[in-house]
Order: sequence, then structure tokens, then C-alpha cells
Amino acid sequence: MMPDFQPADPGYADRVRASFARQGFMRTLGAEIVAVEPGRCEVRLPCRDELGQQHGFLHAGALAAVADSAGGYAAYTLMGTGDSVLTVEYKINLLAPGRGEEAIARARVVRSGRTFTVCQVDIFAVSGGAETLCATMQQTVIRLARRPDVPAA
Amino acid sequence: MMPDFQPADPGYADRVRASFARQGFMRTLGAEIVAVEPGRCEVRLPCRDELGQQHGFLHAGALAAVADSAGGYAAYTLMGTGDSVLTVEYKINLLAPGRGEEAIARARVVRSGRTFTVCQVDIFAVSGGAETLCATMQQTVIRLARRPDVPAA
Amino acid sequence: MMPDFQPADPGYADRVRASFARQGFMRTLGAEIVAVEPGRCEVRLPCRDELGQQHGFLHAGALAAVADSAGGYAAYTLMGTGDSVLTVEYKINLLAPGRGEEAIARARVVRSGRTFTVCQVDIFAVSGGAETLCATMQQTVIRLARRPDVPAA
Amino acid sequence: MMPDFQPADPGYADRVRASFARQGFMRTLGAEIVAVEPGRCEVRLPCRDELGQQHGFLHAGALAAVADSAGGYAAYTLMGTGDSVLTVEYKINLLAPGRGEEAIARARVVRSGRTFTVCQVDIFAVSGGAETLCATMQQTVIRLARRPDVPAA
Repeated sequence: MMPDFQPADPGYADRVRASFARQGFMRTLGAEIVAVEPGRCEVRLPCRDELGQQHGFLHAGALAAVADSAGGYAAYTLMGTGDSVLTVEYKINLLAPGRGEEAIARARVVRSGRTFTVCQVDIFAVSGGAETLCATMQQTVIRLARRPDVPAA
Repeated sequence: MMPDFQPADPGYADRVRASFARQGFMRTLGAEIVAVEPGRCEVRLPCRDELGQQHGFLHAGALAAVADSAGGYAAYTLMGTGDSVLTVEYKINLLAPGRGEEAIARARVVRSGRTFTVCQVDIFAVSGGAETLCATMQQTVIRLARRPDVPAA
Repeated sequence: MMPDFQPADPGYADRVRASFARQGFMRTLGAEIVAVEPGRCEVRLPCRDELGQQHGFLHAGALAAVADSAGGYAAYTLMGTGDSVLTVEYKINLLAPGRGEEAIARARVVRSGRTFTVCQVDIFAVSGGAETLCATMQQTVIRLARRPDVPAA
Repeated sequence: MMPDFQPADPGYADRVRASFARQGFMRTLGAEIVAVEPGRCEVRLPCRDELGQQHGFLHAGALAAVADSAGGYAAYTLMGTGDSVLTVEYKINLLAPGRGEEAIARARVVRSGRTFTVCQVDIFAVSGGAETLCATMQQTVIRLARRPDVPAA
């Protein structure tokens, strides 16, 4: 049922990692890319007090931010060297408290089109090595053609 | 058309500010509450490089995080002293780049029920004093009855 | 706060009504356009048993369908004669039972861009002449340029 | 990764089918339940001109309506005899035109809680026997305890 994707550019993984490295906010969160494959991306977020909400769990906003990045970069793996990627919208359901050592966001492209790409992202809380699904996201991103992914002037 | 809301607890504003102050992530972002009224809450996020995405604008995740908090606390203004609030889900559309001096998230309760509350949150980018709508969120939160909003043990 | 929109084509209302008239499903529902203005569209759905869910209220699917059409056509008012419109995605919250004589979906464009348009749609149940907000939708539609809105061959 | 669910009531399938049969709107659409298992439900919608949009494809509203029902009943399989189910909200992405002989909505519970349940629903267009993913939905439903699923008085 799951489509296999062919990357348009063999250097997709380097492009993804370079773009991720330019995201100051991912650095602030302490997030890092764990894996990149065509149509897939996985981002890891170690838990810290600085990322908590009022009950001491990981703030939904921190989970959503890494899920949004994972989805955007899953989509970006299938784009060309001259393209950049932008999130149009997403919807996230929070299913369980984000507690434990870290959270892992696993994104996969569900539909890759010329203009729009749709991704689903599952976010797991990892506690004592065991994973619990703590959020799930459905996301729409757009390809900006002939707008290479470089910092704004 | 817009409903007026009566708070169940006259001390709602203090409760909201105390709960917000316990959110380590809001501190990490540098976000602060600007205004709290029954069924409404406004949160301000000064722009900083630490909150940027790959093109140098405010990361959607930072915008979404403050919008989510603004919506949750707008809902919380209508709850009782023994209640706490939890985000069930939200959907956000990103409409324009988050650039300028700061972002302002303005949340209002659209429907307040015994179990669920639905909020809409508009997020504005403020540049040179002028506001641009840069994102809009529709959010569902749940009231946890007899679960006072205190830190997890 | 609400933007005013200029239609690209003065014949926008006729185009909207002609396209709506081609939607067999709107006829099946018994829905009709009440008003069309630049960036706005209002659709009316009389209640009938054929549109009910298991408790006898209007099925959320019928409400969502007219809301989706109202939003799509609100966006279409701002497009050109050679364009057609397609829903990319929407999110709807159901707030109160759809009961009474009819439902009214009122759509407005929140952001009109070259490629995609974002709308918000409020759906009211009308009972004894009084309106209750029974659902609210946030929707993304795309402009298909140089693809006039005519039936598929 | 996918959780297995135990139904609270062995008669869940009969309850689902009886409730579905009371939905006048599903009859109007011509939709029928294909399969019911704990945490899963599949609904079939034969294509007809009466369900079309302006380009002659299945109207997104018809697809969404059957997907919403499939998700609600997937959740309902895990509820008790005294419960009823209500959709709180959903988000749907439309991925490909709904064309062919029929559409199939396949719903599965992602998280089953005491108060709310989250489902994902994939909708396939079937043309010449081949399936294409044409929409995907993420949905939140609520359990109404001690409110048996019977018609409103």
C-alpha cells in the first residue's frame, strides 16, 4: 500500500541535513536528524526541562515543531536542487504525555505531487527504551520551484 | 455573533499567569502573556535568531507553540479552580513569513462546553509596528475536572 | 482586520453560480447559494430526513459538504475566467447538533494567494429563525491556472 | 506498531450495523458497511452522478461523509452497549480525483481513550479494480457514556 519514492536528486540527504542545520530553532530545541531516506525523515528530540509545559511533560509545541520539520524534510527528499519547501498547514493530535528520555518524530510522504506534498508524522515518546505513540500529524507542504533553499538575504 | 463569556472563577487571570509561568518552554521561547480576559488570551513572542527556520524567518513551530498556549489559556479562563486544561488537537495554516520584531497570538474561545472547548487563534507578525496575519489556528482543548493545574510529582 | 478583496473578473458571481449548478451532489443535498460577494459565499441547506445521522440530526458530512462548497466558491470569486478551484484539505469542528429548519454556511477568504487560498467557514443551524453556530471549518484551496471550470470530458 | 484492540462488548458489530442503518444520509449516498472489526471499519460508496462535483468526480463532501462514518464506527466498535459516539472534529486531505466505480473508506483507531478516540481513515478510489489513495483523514471522536445510540425523541 505504501508507495516507494525515487529521489529527483541523489544528493537529497546532504541537502536535507544542510537545510536542517540552518534552522536556529532546531538547535535551540536540541533536535537532530536521525535518518533520511527518499520520502522519509526521522528527527530526535531529547527531553529537557527547558522544553516543558505546566505539568512537566514535553510541550506540545516542541513536539509539533520537530514533527513539522521531519515532515517538511521527508517531502524535501523528493524535490530538486533548485527547490525549497514550505509548510502550508498541519494538524496534530496529542495522544499521550510526552515523557521519558526523548521523543522521535517519524515522517513519511503519503502523496508527492508537483505542487503539494502530503505527509503523515508519528511522534513517539521513548521512556526506558520503550516507545509510546504520543502524537500524530497530517501535514501539507508546498514546493517552491526555482527557489533554492538558502538563507534569506 | 461573538459570544460573551462569564468566568467560573474570578481569579482566572492569576491562575492563567501562574500556569503560564510554569511552562519552561514558553520561557525558552521568550514568550509572555500580554492580555487575559474571559474567553480570550494574547501571547507575545519577540523574534530572535534562536527561533528561526532555514530561511531566517520565525519557525512555524515557535509560532504554533505560542498560539497553542494562547488558545489553551483562553479556554482555561472559563474553567474552575480545580480544573486543568490539555490540548487535544489543533490545525494551523501558515499564511505569511513570520518576520519583523515580534509575533502576537490572539486566541478566542468559539465554543465552551463541559468537556471540550474550541478556540480560534490568529497570529500576527509585527514589523515596524504594522501587523500582518501570518498564521491561523483552530484548536480543541479538553477540561480535566478535579485535576488542579499543578506540576507533575 | 478583515481584508477587502477585489475580484479579478467582474463576472465572478455568474461563474460561481454556473459551477455550483454543475455539482450534482449539491443538487442531491438540496443546497443552494444564498449570496456571493468578493471573497465571500453563503450556502443554504434545508434539513431533511434524507440528510440525517443516527440521532436524527443533520449528518456532519452534509454540513461539511456545503461548508466545503461555500469555502471553495468564496475563493473562486477572486480567481480569473481561465481558472478552476480545488480543495486541498480542510478541518472542521462540530460544535452543536445540526437541528432546525436549515443550515447556513458562511465562508470568507482569510488569505488569497497566487497558488493557494485559505478560508474560514462558519456553519449555523437555524431553528425558529434563531441561529446557533454548529460547526466551523478552516480550509485550503488551490487555484488551477489555465484550467477553466468546465465538466471533465 | 499497530495496537490490537479488544472490544468491550462482543455484540459490537451488530450495534455498528444497526446504528449505520439509522443514518438516513448514508442511505441517500448509497454507502454500505463492508467490514467491521475491533478498532476498524470499512465503508463502500458506489460512484453516481448524483454525488459529483463540478468536474464530474466524486464530491469531496461525499468522500468525507463516508470516511467520517467509517472512523466513527471504528471507534464505536470499542465502546460499550450504553455508549454512543459523536465526531468532535476531523481534517481531510484530498489527494487525487475520486473517479472510477466506487470509493472505499478504511478506518482504524490510532488511540482509544476513556473520553476520546483518534482515528485515521484512508479513502481509495477503485477504478477497473485498481485502488488509488484519493483522500486521508485524521479524526477525533468522543464517547458519550450512558447515552445509548438510539434515535432522538
